[in-house]
Amino acid sequence: MDEILSLCRRRGFIFPSSEIYGGLAGFYDYGPLGCELKKNIRDAWWQDMVHRRDDIVGMDGSIIMHPGVWKASGHVDGFSDPMVDCRESKMRYRADQLFYASVEVDRQIIGYVCVLEDSSMEVAALEAAKQLKSKLPVRGELQPLQLKCYMDAPETVQKLIPSPATGTPGALTPPRAFNLMFATHVGAVCDDASAAYLRPETAQGIFVNFKNILDSVHRKLPFGVAQIGRAFRNEITPRNFIFRSREFEQMELEYFIGPDADWEDLHRQWVEERLHWHHSIGIRPELLGLQVHAKEKLAHYSRACTDITFRYPFGQQELEGIAARGNFDLTRHQEASGKSLEYFDEEMRKKYIPHVIEPSVGVDRVLLAVLCSAYGRDKIDGEERTVLRLHPRVAPIKAAIFPLVKNKPEVVLMAQDIHRQLMKRWNVAYDASGAIGRRYRRMDEVGTPFAITVDFESLENGTVTLRERDSTKQRRMDAREIMDHIADAINS
Amino acid sequence: MDEILSLCRRRGFIFPSSEIYGGLAGFYDYGPLGCELKKNIRDAWWQDMVHRRDDIVGMDGSIIMHPGVWKASGHVDGFSDPMVDCRESKMRYRADQLFYASVEVDRQIIGYVCVLEDSSMEVAALEAAKQLKSKLPVRGELQPLQLKCYMDAPETVQKLIPSPATGTPGALTPPRAFNLMFATHVGAVCDDASAAYLRPETAQGIFVNFKNILDSVHRKLPFGVAQIGRAFRNEITPRNFIFRSREFEQMELEYFIGPDADWEDLHRQWVEERLHWHHSIGIRPELLGLQVHAKEKLAHYSRACTDITFRYPFGQQELEGIAARGNFDLTRHQEASGKSLEYFDEEMRKKYIPHVIEPSVGVDRVLLAVLCSAYGRDKIDGEERTVLRLHPRVAPIKAAIFPLVKNKPEVVLMAQDIHRQLMKRWNVAYDASGAIGRRYRRMDEVGTPFAITVDFESLENGTVTLRERDSTKQRRMDAREIMDHIADAINS
Repeated sequence: MDEILSLCRRRGFIFPSSEIYGGLAGFYDYGPLGCELKKNIRDAWWQDMVHRRDDIVGMDGSIIMHPGVWKASGHVDGFSDPMVDCRESKMRYRADQLFYASVEVDRQIIGYVCVLEDSSMEVAALEAAKQLKSKLPVRGELQPLQLKCYMDAPETVQKLIPSPATGTPGALTPPRAFNLMFATHVGAVCDDASAAYLRPETAQGIFVNFKNILDSVHRKLPFGVAQIGRAFRNEITPRNFIFRSREFEQMELEYFIGPDADWEDLHRQWVEERLHWHHSIGIRPELLGLQVHAKEKLAHYSRACTDITFRYPFGQQELEGIAARGNFDLTRHQEASGKSLEYFDEEMRKKYIPHVIEPSVGVDRVLLAVLCSAYGRDKIDGEERTVLRLHPRVAPIKAAIFPLVKNKPEVVLMAQDIHRQLMKRWNVAYDASGAIGRRYRRMDEVGTPFAITVDFESLENGTVTLRERDSTKQRRMDAREIMDHIADAINS
Repeated sequence: MDEILSLCRRRGFIFPSSEIYGGLAGFYDYGPLGCELKKNIRDAWWQDMVHRRDDIVGMDGSIIMHPGVWKASGHVDGFSDPMVDCRESKMRYRADQLFYASVEVDRQIIGYVCVLEDSSMEVAALEAAKQLKSKLPVRGELQPLQLKCYMDAPETVQKLIPSPATGTPGALTPPRAFNLMFATHVGAVCDDASAAYLRPETAQGIFVNFKNILDSVHRKLPFGVAQIGRAFRNEITPRNFIFRSREFEQMELEYFIGPDADWEDLHRQWVEERLHWHHSIGIRPELLGLQVHAKEKLAHYSRACTDITFRYPFGQQELEGIAARGNFDLTRHQEASGKSLEYFDEEMRKKYIPHVIEPSVGVDRVLLAVLCSAYGRDKIDGEERTVLRLHPRVAPIKAAIFPLVKNKPEVVLMAQDIHRQLMKRWNVAYDASGAIGRRYRRMDEVGTPFAITVDFESLENGTVTLRERDSTKQRRMDAREIMDHIADAINS
């Protein structure tokens, strides 16, 4: 992970937001290469989910919506995380990310330890337990620790658990609900009536526009509406780089189906479809997994939910969620707004509120999975290189054009000419400085799939060398064939 | 304007945001066709400003930035509009949009009238003046009214001016500054330290990332950084549809130049370049204009500013601003952050803070200008049609494929096959219902440049008819040539 972070920063993929001002926790900016990668991921999703399908249309809604939307959806009352304060240090924690254990010696509890959820939390807890024991006049064997979530601790025990910040038992407050929506005020008055929220998800924008969209496109069910856009969650403890940030980008779609449709089969199809999509943009299948949510842990309105997970360096985590949400959302909005959100089914000759399957994925999470999948180090001719094996479709730079030498005008002119042609269609690079091997390395590191070199032979017969990033193999090719070759690779 | 609004809504271009909840003033959602049009405008700008140029790179920053950014840029202290309240009705007005006149009869002031800025405000004011006179026991000729801005009224006069809402003299408060930034809080504590703002412009994100970007791309001046993204302004009186909304999208670029560069010439070049770009996406040149800001009205740090204006149905208004901002922004951020934002010029062997030329344009304003430019009604074979003459590059649907008849499987199959091929590359439509003339009309109305019909002859020789939206001319063409034909039109 540290290597990827360092690459991201050095080569201009991702920077901490407002870094010259010390940054702002949970906010990131995408630099020249990062924003191209992000745009390519967005565009690939939009092309595959909207343009290349007959049954899905897009929309692009506002981030600030009427506050009634969030009351009806349940976000005003229920979209919160359990928060715990340390009274001494003023640090704040998510109670479900705090783990504690009783420290026992000879079946006697001599105190408690408390650690933050982490892949190394067992080690940290054991260390703290040993320290605790060393300070007390007790002998005997330390019993193995059993870490439990702070949320599940009885109140009497919570008072004895030490703060992870100061180590003082009882410094933590009981958990309380903290709403994750960013609030603001629309208009010149700051009161309850003008309160509004930054959307914590893009999905509700689709539900409230369902009828407007249906009336303008006249589609028959099943049909879907897709949206890409920023969403905001005031996370208590943003972490894992762009994986859990406070501002992020979602690609969500609501696939509306009839109440009698075989939703289990459609849900299964969507899981397949989405898994296939992640493969298609170059995420390594062996790093992907599926996690089916247990029926008893689902929200009351949810019929099923399957996560597509990815093995990030910090653990196997949710990349995308595919939920069967019944008709909960449309029903709630119909009730709250008083406007009919029913669909008239001409074949069945009846009206009903459609049900939905909802595949929902974060652009930033996909981008991080793409980077983690693509990152590698290998040896080429005895020299170590860093390489991003990005699929050509998402690669920020599709090709780099090199004149073999700088001081031969005909070579330079031909290289510039090829560059000009390719840049009409794609983001490409031109690099004339340094040894050719170093130019290859610079492009390998940012995932450019093709390097095209114009040399002396090019002047004679119009061919160039095309060097492939992954195999590092070179072959000569007529310069006029390059465009098609790259286009094929991108669409493969 | 009303016709365009009605078309936008009926065909799914633009809806009021959260409409089922009564809407939220100043917020809009883009429907299936609107979001495609918007995406095409964004993509055209990005392609022309970033991919097709050697000297500009992109970035994509967060909407919420460190509050220090907005203190340094002057937005916390200075980004405000003068606001006036009506004490009776609680209505709020922008003082610079309120106009008043003294009502005089026989050189005697008998009272004041007050109206909102509007193309018909003279008429409204005269009407109000007549009413005022009729209520008073005065005779004689009403003197012509001279409307002046409320901002410029002396305090003694402000107390006599009636509220436009209630007509009561003295009901308006004196103007006071109202900051247009939406405020929120980051983290779990709501205090001054956690206050943050939604960006009111994307430009500052470029300035604060200047050094990070420069260090990762190693460019020489002049070079530019481009960004597209949402911005937010809590307008007191949002109006004119998507022209002045509270949430909007900007396309901004900062073109960094040396302190000794011929900035006047570069500024002129950028005005040309941007004007040309607006032509290239199909905005009618005769509706575009230039407005040079008077030197004495510029902000102290600004050296020049030229607006590209467009003749909207509600008046000739700013579409894009091209400003020469000196080195004000980078200097302020260097001072406030304590981090060097200097550039080392290798040729001149010295360090300096670069200056900038800033072309800044709103996506929504471009979209509205594109729609207004393209909208028309004409007669085809005696039948009236509504047509959007959109440039193929920005048209939401690039082509529509029609089987001439529904009940001939070979015709349908061939049409579906062409549809499948085209949808791999573009957003296209398939329509098999209704008379062919009606299908043409539906596509004309949403600006689809090409309609391809598969008929009986198609089965014999593999040709189809290609009908061109603007001329309504049809010609037969080999089905295999369609892809290239459309691609050429888009890139023309």
